Amino acid sequence: MARKSGSHGEITGPRILAAAERLIARKGFAAVTMREIAREVGVQAGALYLYIPDKQTLLFDLMRRHMEELLAAWEAEPKGETPLEQLEAFARFHIRFHLARPDATFISYMELRNLEPENFARIEALRKRYEDILEGILKEGSAAGVFRVPDTKLATMALIAMLTGVNTWYREGGRLSRERVERIYWNMVRRAVKG
Amino acid sequence: MARKSGSHGEITGPRILAAAERLIARKGFAAVTMREIAREVGVQAGALYLYIPDKQTLLFDLMRRHMEELLAAWEAEPKGETPLEQLEAFARFHIRFHLARPDATFISYMELRNLEPENFARIEALRKRYEDILEGILKEGSAAGVFRVPDTKLATMALIAMLTGVNTWYREGGRLSRERVERIYWNMVRRAVKG
Repeated sequence: MARKSGSHGEITGPRILAAAERLIARKGFAAVTMREIAREVGVQAGALYLYIPDKQTLLFDLMRRHMEELLAAWEAEPKGETPLEQLEAFARFHIRFHLARPDATFISYMELRNLEPENFARIEALRKRYEDILEGILKEGSAAGVFRVPDTKLATMALIAMLTGVNTWYREGGRLSRERVERIYWNMVRRAVKG
Repeated sequence: MARKSGSHGEITGPRILAAAERLIARKGFAAVTMREIAREVGVQAGALYLYIPDKQTLLFDLMRRHMEELLAAWEAEPKGETPLEQLEAFARFHIRFHLARPDATFISYMELRNLEPENFARIEALRKRYEDILEGILKEGSAAGVFRVPDTKLATMALIAMLTGVNTWYREGGRLSRERVERIYWNMVRRAVKG
């Protein structure tokens, strides 16, 4: 039987997270109130508290969802066989995934300091899992003599920072297509680590 | 004649900026009040307003000072002659300058969205001047056939993001010295653009 719509029935987790994401990306976590988020969802603040205990939980949920989607999307990505093919897949995937989610990406980097210690540790563990994917590719390629990387940990951090940086300047409809940006960045990544 | 010390005489621009920088880096611009900054300086809020009209001016002053120091420090840096020597000087300088100023660097990236439009435009113009230095080196090296860079603008953004990223993970007393980090990053930069 279909569920009846009503003032509470209309609030859903995804709608709350979407509203919170927009507001936090625009104004910053510290400046956003639960009341504003409720207004953005279109409900009373009291109704919001039935779904989300507090702002900290909301921030943690946003960042965890972002990281879990990132890891799941990479799992689903066609990756190729060789370390070189995998590195290309990773570089292009990283740019594509983050350009499609500017608000979530922005929050993930900007609001880390606002996570409480236990939440911070859980997000850091998810980030570490993602970094380990790239480091694994670099290690495999180094062992095979395809890459020459004196420190795979540093190269991992360097390449992720470089690739995520696209989000700070890329504008849709600007002079370069996403495909062209992916290609140019992949070329720099490849040359930075090649053996 | 020596100036007498007193409750007002003891507030100076640099002390206010230093206190504001510490607080804003730790808590975020939106969460910090002029009252807290006054407490950190050790004066009444009223005394602070004699020196700084508002929080926006404080944020702008911090970001402008950071960019002006960056540009002045690069001017004073020994740069070498060839594009390759200049690129090495730039890569090492960028890492060294920003690692020495973690709070100012953090604020410069995190709080851009909190600048009012006119202030934002002025900071952007200073950032552009800095980016133009690196792009100039890449263009010169490309023209000389030393570098192979299909898009000097993109390479500039990619390299600056990579180099600034060191600030997000480097810890003093960790497994790598600054010199070793500089060397490894310079190597990746060189290989990413070499002809």
